[in-house]
Amino acid sequence: MDIATLKELHPDHFARATAVRTLAMDAVEAANSGHPGMPMGMADVATVLFEKHLKFDAAAPNWPDRDRFILSAGHGSMLIYALLYLTGYEDMTLDQIKNFRQLGSITAGHPEYGHASGIETTTGPLGQGITNAVGFAMAEESLRARYGKKVVDHYTYVIAGDGCLMEGISHEAIGLAGMQKLSKLIVLWDDNNISIDGKISLSDVTDQRMRFKAAGWHVLECDGHDPEDIDRALTQAKSSKKPTMIACKTHIGFGSPNRQDTAKAHGSPLGADEMQATKDAYGWAHGPFEVPGDVLDQWRAIGTQGRAARDEWSERFASLSQSRQNELERMWSATPPKKLASTIRALKKQISESAPKVATRKSSEMVLEVVNPVMPENIGGSADLTGSNNTLTADLGVFSPDNRKGRYVHFGIREHGMSAAMNGMYLHGSVRPYGGTFLTFTDYAKGAIRLSALMGIPVTYVMTHDSIGLGEDGPTHQPVEHLAGLRATPNINVFRPADTVETAEAWEIALSSEKTPSVLALSRQNLPTVRTEHKTKNLTAQGAYVLRDAEGKRQAILMATGSEVEIAMAARDLLQAEGIGTRVVSMPCWELFEEQDEAYRRKVLPAGPVRVAIEAAIRFGWDRWLFGERGKREKSGFIGMHGFGASAPAPELYKDFGITAEATAAKVKDLLEGRWSPDART
Amino acid sequence: MDIATLKELHPDHFARATAVRTLAMDAVEAANSGHPGMPMGMADVATVLFEKHLKFDAAAPNWPDRDRFILSAGHGSMLIYALLYLTGYEDMTLDQIKNFRQLGSITAGHPEYGHASGIETTTGPLGQGITNAVGFAMAEESLRARYGKKVVDHYTYVIAGDGCLMEGISHEAIGLAGMQKLSKLIVLWDDNNISIDGKISLSDVTDQRMRFKAAGWHVLECDGHDPEDIDRALTQAKSSKKPTMIACKTHIGFGSPNRQDTAKAHGSPLGADEMQATKDAYGWAHGPFEVPGDVLDQWRAIGTQGRAARDEWSERFASLSQSRQNELERMWSATPPKKLASTIRALKKQISESAPKVATRKSSEMVLEVVNPVMPENIGGSADLTGSNNTLTADLGVFSPDNRKGRYVHFGIREHGMSAAMNGMYLHGSVRPYGGTFLTFTDYAKGAIRLSALMGIPVTYVMTHDSIGLGEDGPTHQPVEHLAGLRATPNINVFRPADTVETAEAWEIALSSEKTPSVLALSRQNLPTVRTEHKTKNLTAQGAYVLRDAEGKRQAILMATGSEVEIAMAARDLLQAEGIGTRVVSMPCWELFEEQDEAYRRKVLPAGPVRVAIEAAIRFGWDRWLFGERGKREKSGFIGMHGFGASAPAPELYKDFGITAEATAAKVKDLLEGRWSPDART
Repeated sequence: MDIATLKELHPDHFARATAVRTLAMDAVEAANSGHPGMPMGMADVATVLFEKHLKFDAAAPNWPDRDRFILSAGHGSMLIYALLYLTGYEDMTLDQIKNFRQLGSITAGHPEYGHASGIETTTGPLGQGITNAVGFAMAEESLRARYGKKVVDHYTYVIAGDGCLMEGISHEAIGLAGMQKLSKLIVLWDDNNISIDGKISLSDVTDQRMRFKAAGWHVLECDGHDPEDIDRALTQAKSSKKPTMIACKTHIGFGSPNRQDTAKAHGSPLGADEMQATKDAYGWAHGPFEVPGDVLDQWRAIGTQGRAARDEWSERFASLSQSRQNELERMWSATPPKKLASTIRALKKQISESAPKVATRKSSEMVLEVVNPVMPENIGGSADLTGSNNTLTADLGVFSPDNRKGRYVHFGIREHGMSAAMNGMYLHGSVRPYGGTFLTFTDYAKGAIRLSALMGIPVTYVMTHDSIGLGEDGPTHQPVEHLAGLRATPNINVFRPADTVETAEAWEIALSSEKTPSVLALSRQNLPTVRTEHKTKNLTAQGAYVLRDAEGKRQAILMATGSEVEIAMAARDLLQAEGIGTRVVSMPCWELFEEQDEAYRRKVLPAGPVRVAIEAAIRFGWDRWLFGERGKREKSGFIGMHGFGASAPAPELYKDFGITAEATAAKVKDLLEGRWSPDART
Repeated sequence: MDIATLKELHPDHFARATAVRTLAMDAVEAANSGHPGMPMGMADVATVLFEKHLKFDAAAPNWPDRDRFILSAGHGSMLIYALLYLTGYEDMTLDQIKNFRQLGSITAGHPEYGHASGIETTTGPLGQGITNAVGFAMAEESLRARYGKKVVDHYTYVIAGDGCLMEGISHEAIGLAGMQKLSKLIVLWDDNNISIDGKISLSDVTDQRMRFKAAGWHVLECDGHDPEDIDRALTQAKSSKKPTMIACKTHIGFGSPNRQDTAKAHGSPLGADEMQATKDAYGWAHGPFEVPGDVLDQWRAIGTQGRAARDEWSERFASLSQSRQNELERMWSATPPKKLASTIRALKKQISESAPKVATRKSSEMVLEVVNPVMPENIGGSADLTGSNNTLTADLGVFSPDNRKGRYVHFGIREHGMSAAMNGMYLHGSVRPYGGTFLTFTDYAKGAIRLSALMGIPVTYVMTHDSIGLGEDGPTHQPVEHLAGLRATPNINVFRPADTVETAEAWEIALSSEKTPSVLALSRQNLPTVRTEHKTKNLTAQGAYVLRDAEGKRQAILMATGSEVEIAMAARDLLQAEGIGTRVVSMPCWELFEEQDEAYRRKVLPAGPVRVAIEAAIRFGWDRWLFGERGKREKSGFIGMHGFGASAPAPELYKDFGITAEATAAKVKDLLEGRWSPDART
């Protein structure tokens, strides 16, 4: 539909949608930076969605049963900022719009979760939003099945662009959604034929309609500038038994005489002349950032439309039993149950006494077996490595179209999709997800893991097969740099527990975390219990601690994580046998150790003794602990990897790469006797 | 087709295929580790492919015009090892098969490029092989168009499993291949309905046939156990004008009475009893690793079938002009042209004199403008950020179905796909690819970048927008941990050049590299030329060097990379003005600095002066240079990021995060005056 027709047939709609368009144009122009073309193109679709379909109340952005709106094409951030301002979200003031992309504003270049209410997730890295949305929709299905339609019954709407749909992660998202028959998930594809480099046909000829059908979706189309057609498609989508993709045929930069339908409309301000020409084409005679009173009134009325539905919902919620209400409120607030601590303590005690020799992936399963029954918010899964990641516990049941009460997701061979869906599940509220794959495949998932960290979402990544200790699968499957890469990322707790007790402690921290995702790096191979003396206190929460102190004069400190703590303990035995007093420090979580006060850190790692770190990974990052934080001279050395691994049984690899108690003891003696030599580095 | 019918109708074929099956079973059993089900299921398809279609000569594994065979489902490694042994590849002895997955063997758990001839690429991380194959096929098209069908004319065959096709990267691969109409790419999908967790329907309902059609592919089917049907499908595929996917209906663990068609067949040895039962079902009365002489003879004959074709090809090659032959031979050997060095030198000289103030992404374009014309092996591209990455130069032309001579690829919004395709292009031979995206999106591509490093493939990643210096796009787009994550990965040269001269030097190293991929981290923002004095020598090759020495007594050393070298120089001015002798060390490539001898490193970074490092990224890894490699006491500090970035114009961000000349000078003075304080860490 062209502007003239649109204006004639739907003048009020046109004015509302054009308020969105011009706010976007003005803000990008003022910032001299941003993406005007997408908001201009999708304003009609978004206007109809907000006016006629989206269940929301601008006065209550966190109402748990609101429909979710996710702008997967996050570069079009001005679209959502304009909508939030127009519908009356309190924090989205006109000043914020005017300060688009400026320091301290809540209107960042891409929508940032936590900056403004109404932003359900951080988007910008393409394909993340649509995959988060799959998580939102799964969370809704799960909670609806378990807590009833009376209190959980909403849609998840997504605006996605060609970029989102070209990214690989979108394949994982739509495959998962199609298999799970997420009928309340509705994707509005901004079908404008343009990407940054030019026409889509420069790089893609995919028939998106056929592609979504192939994945089990319902596919609809509409003229993305015709409000009646948009409304028709949305109405149809809502009654589908499958997830729905609506191909919205739009014009990028709609109305711009010289930029419409070109890549130039995508990511640059229009410039003063083209701005004016466009506003002339709209017949929009208002100044920058100016929305006529009657148009703003219409929008504000839309912003309050959902109030009645919310009030009815509140009544229904109040009709639940008090214990149900309490449980849901606890889950909304992401507060772990009181029973978590006692459950973990009981397990730790039992383990310290029985001292099993098991892989920490198995330890993790032992923990999950006891905590999943007391945490209904836990939803677990694996990227097709269930039996290897040990993520499925007896009580969960499998989440599927036939069993929505199941709490275990077979995510398929979709590490990136799993991770982004986990982000969405948590963001939905009332769900605390965990998911497993091999540690080396954090490489496939990092795009989503980074967003867990950036948004401050405490999901848990269960990453097993965490070193050469996995053995025969060889170097493609053996992480060596991944611990460093994750430790380097802000706001991730990277746990590498040494035994079942540390694994239980790590899980307790992960499941109580408010703002920090956790990565559990777990062994494939069996490890002895090193924490054989029960302590109520969560020692892992200190990040590092003295596992075994020196007997006699303390001459050496061995630092190790995970499977190498066993080696450190054995090396200590060798050294003590020669009269060399040796302390073993277990360091399951560097980040938490860093958070301790300096006095504690100095107590654990005092100056003086030689220091040797042992980790079956590369040295990168260890200097911080080897040299001391002040860079004070320490005689120190590193036992670990200096490059990629190899394919062979694990014990042979440890020997071949020199990660042994003997090598450790020899290194300590060399240092004590003044024979410092450089460690090979990666 | 069932075993009885197969045996009856095609006894020779059955024996050949069963030799593959039993070798796989025996090897997995001996290793007590591995994946027998896939080789057992795909042996019939592979046997027909090698016998009737694959153009190869086992005696000449590197014949440039051979057909390429890529086992994307790399866990089925015994399939390819068995085929290589049976067809007579010299290095693939029976002993190697017997030593499957053992230390020092060439038969690693997953096929490793460089271990054995006939392994075209390392596979195992799912989806990589099929995407490499797209690169192989693109390289073939490009070279055929430019050098003629007489010398370049071959197919690329892939075996891919459900795992490959579920991974997001496969979406990027098939989208790119479909758009590019790579008609000589043929994918054999092992359609067996089983993944590790169980039936595919647990996690996926995708109609793969429809999906491939949607992406512009030709789709065929066959009974994967019927040699005539397999042959028919392959024959049809070869005459297609589009890439072809053949859905090969197979049974995983074919013939195993109790494991066939189950997930149990996937990743565990059969065990002695089931082995025997399976061999009984085959009617295979031979011992472990035993291949009857007549069967081996048949296979060996297949291994020599291609000799005639190769001889004919050699004649055709000899008929080319000498200069053509020389150029092709140079390109096959991945030797850069002699002109590269002189071209770079001339550019450096000109730049040192004109001293432009440009972003290093622009510097990179200036380099490419002069080197692309002298390096026909260069094929460039970008993941839909051409104008931002500055990767397209005037002479390249766009590679497309209509212009196969073009040397620039619009990869689309497919960072992972681009990277894996680049690996494939290089592995094909005669192509040296580079590709661009934003540095932050190395997160999307790391799975393939790691394989560049592991395989030792010298592709170049042109990663622009390398810090908060990109400004308004905000924290999702601002890398802070990515330099650390890449530096932590073995065998990657991470370059962060300070100006156009260093950028030229980095490109020279990248384009001459034999075994190491390069990441160029380039600025969005303009930077002054700091190398204003022309030096013929490539100083970047030393990794770090004294850019400007102290005047007077050397009291401080400032270390910086990329855009922060400008800040270091300004800080030096401030300090020198106060009489504090200050050296500036530019460190464009840590890895190359690490490779210098200790004497050089000590000369650049002598003990004594205080050290401050400046980098708009997190500190992780810098301790190695701040504390000195022996962990000797240095008064040191770090000016950089301590968490994620923010959305604002770049100059404001630098100020807000305290990455300024003033902050640097103040830190130096604090240290000189004994006021050490801990730097916030991530």
